[in-house]
Amino acid sequence: MLVNNIKYKTIWLNSSKKVIIIDQTLLPFNFKEVELKTLDCVINAIVEMQVRGAPLIGVTAAFGIYLAVKSSNQDNHIVDAGKRLVETRPTAINLNWAVNRIIKILLETSLSDREEKALSVANIMWKEDQEINEKIGIFGAEEINKIYKKIDRPVNILTHCNAGWLATVDWGTATAPIYKARDMGIPLHVWVDETRPRNQGSYLTAFELKHEFINHTIITDNTGGHLMQNGLVDLVITGSDRTTYTGDVCNKIGTYLKALAAYDNDIPFYVALPSSTIDWDTNNGNQIKIEKRDENEVHYIKGVNEYNEIQNIRVTPKNTKAANYAFDVTPRKYITSLITEFGLIEPNENKILDIKKIKK
Amino acid sequence: MLVNNIKYKTIWLNSSKKVIIIDQTLLPFNFKEVELKTLDCVINAIVEMQVRGAPLIGVTAAFGIYLAVKSSNQDNHIVDAGKRLVETRPTAINLNWAVNRIIKILLETSLSDREEKALSVANIMWKEDQEINEKIGIFGAEEINKIYKKIDRPVNILTHCNAGWLATVDWGTATAPIYKARDMGIPLHVWVDETRPRNQGSYLTAFELKHEFINHTIITDNTGGHLMQNGLVDLVITGSDRTTYTGDVCNKIGTYLKALAAYDNDIPFYVALPSSTIDWDTNNGNQIKIEKRDENEVHYIKGVNEYNEIQNIRVTPKNTKAANYAFDVTPRKYITSLITEFGLIEPNENKILDIKKIKK
Repeated sequence: MLVNNIKYKTIWLNSSKKVIIIDQTLLPFNFKEVELKTLDCVINAIVEMQVRGAPLIGVTAAFGIYLAVKSSNQDNHIVDAGKRLVETRPTAINLNWAVNRIIKILLETSLSDREEKALSVANIMWKEDQEINEKIGIFGAEEINKIYKKIDRPVNILTHCNAGWLATVDWGTATAPIYKARDMGIPLHVWVDETRPRNQGSYLTAFELKHEFINHTIITDNTGGHLMQNGLVDLVITGSDRTTYTGDVCNKIGTYLKALAAYDNDIPFYVALPSSTIDWDTNNGNQIKIEKRDENEVHYIKGVNEYNEIQNIRVTPKNTKAANYAFDVTPRKYITSLITEFGLIEPNENKILDIKKIKK
Repeated sequence: MLVNNIKYKTIWLNSSKKVIIIDQTLLPFNFKEVELKTLDCVINAIVEMQVRGAPLIGVTAAFGIYLAVKSSNQDNHIVDAGKRLVETRPTAINLNWAVNRIIKILLETSLSDREEKALSVANIMWKEDQEINEKIGIFGAEEINKIYKKIDRPVNILTHCNAGWLATVDWGTATAPIYKARDMGIPLHVWVDETRPRNQGSYLTAFELKHEFINHTIITDNTGGHLMQNGLVDLVITGSDRTTYTGDVCNKIGTYLKALAAYDNDIPFYVALPSSTIDWDTNNGNQIKIEKRDENEVHYIKGVNEYNEIQNIRVTPKNTKAANYAFDVTPRKYITSLITEFGLIEPNENKILDIKKIKK
């Protein structure tokens, strides 16, 4: 997608076969490319959220395994690298999936071919992610088009957090339908939830939409319910970090509240996700362990001062406590449809298990 | 209530009969007393939110009329002062009530007695506000005690925005039951919603509770739903800027989302309010005009840097739009009880109209 009118991916191999990412911790204030030289760089990039978003974390981890293999192609080294990567973000189910996938292949590959193989598998996953998201976009845009045909005015879409192209290699999950609908000529306006405490909505989603010239408005996380009560939202689309095979969605904290409001106002609530984020072992969302992050993410906030310098300031009284739960679970009951690369799926066990059959 | 172990009110006459307030725009970072010398100072203090919260705005406006009368005791001057005060905050129903009450009395008072009368009425309203809130506290604390007896462990209370003593003359509305329950020896913990965009939760409620030594934790506005799903909230208490006589509550944006989550998890949702904030003319909350405030309240945020200097920084990309709705409406269906100075009232027309009879 576009940044300053230049097409970008979030991670790529440059002409010298170096792994390059966009440092997302500096967005929207600075745009900076960073090389990931070693496995440690990759782990640090995931922990510090220079890359974030379930799909992008998965692909980045695959490149992390490639970098690990470059330094040593031994079994125990590769397995250990995988463990360290998986531990960086406990909620991201497809991080586990991506790491296991590449490691399984490498352990079946002769030592001398491992480096080349690691790079080729990481590249395949890089390409697949884009194809999957583009399919999600096409299926989701059809839904937006149906709504547009009914209302015959610009479609108001609310989204939470950033499940945009910056959370994937390209296209995004929740935003792919928006970009595809725009390409179909459907007039759109997007309500962008700020998404405290890390502000991925105002920092990243608004940045994306601005550079792609899509009409949007930033709102605080408190606002969506009021907009829905007043006919100002036609549909909600969010991403998902992990979806149980029974249809419960674990996504950025606050998703559940928006789903409740959509349900209360008869507004369709879509969750866009690649099938790699489905958790085939968990039958109830309340069993998912929710990541608790550093409370300083609540106490401090990042922005720019009048000289456009990035600053971190404290926004709570000194010596107060804060709690920082990163995700919540939206029960299947409140979800209209899951938008996957296989099309729209009702959020229930039977329909989701059908995907598993297709995937085999 | 206590600040640095000294008892304060939010507005008071000092020994030289000067009207003094706490400049709440500087909290929690600085604590500063400010004199309101003229009606213009009062209007500015309300518009700039040096004083805020429906009950405190009402009492401050009464002192504003007193200051107006000091400069001229003519009918048209007093009526004009009232109009200007009412226009400062369109949602605060009791601002209208407070101003009309004092003006009506003054217009029936001889010119020579008006200044003294204005001061005495403002003082009566100042005293009444405290008595009313204390009664709300006593009734609300009984409810907390009932819950405490059932669960026999510290009671977890979630509150949104600041309906604390800083929003009134003393005690607060939503916090009065908390202070009274604490005085009864009930162990408590309060979840404090940050309350974007103006952060009255983290700036003011956390400040209050800290100085009153009440255990509390700041959370982002996205978090309450997750806590409620996981048994970490025993009851919710919020304030109300305006309550229709049919029981719909117009309060700080985001209140509705918390009410939905409480309802979904069978958690009691209380709204504490003085009966002066009941709107006797509106039978459905959706008829209330919602104040839209400056979008820069979303773009910029206030905090302190490492040198403890207050700074405003921009937290959104340049050249993006934001929308800033100040309030939302929680339908009566989601409210367990209204806590008023007359006791607990079911949020329905019959029960609320009974109060009107008592008041007459």
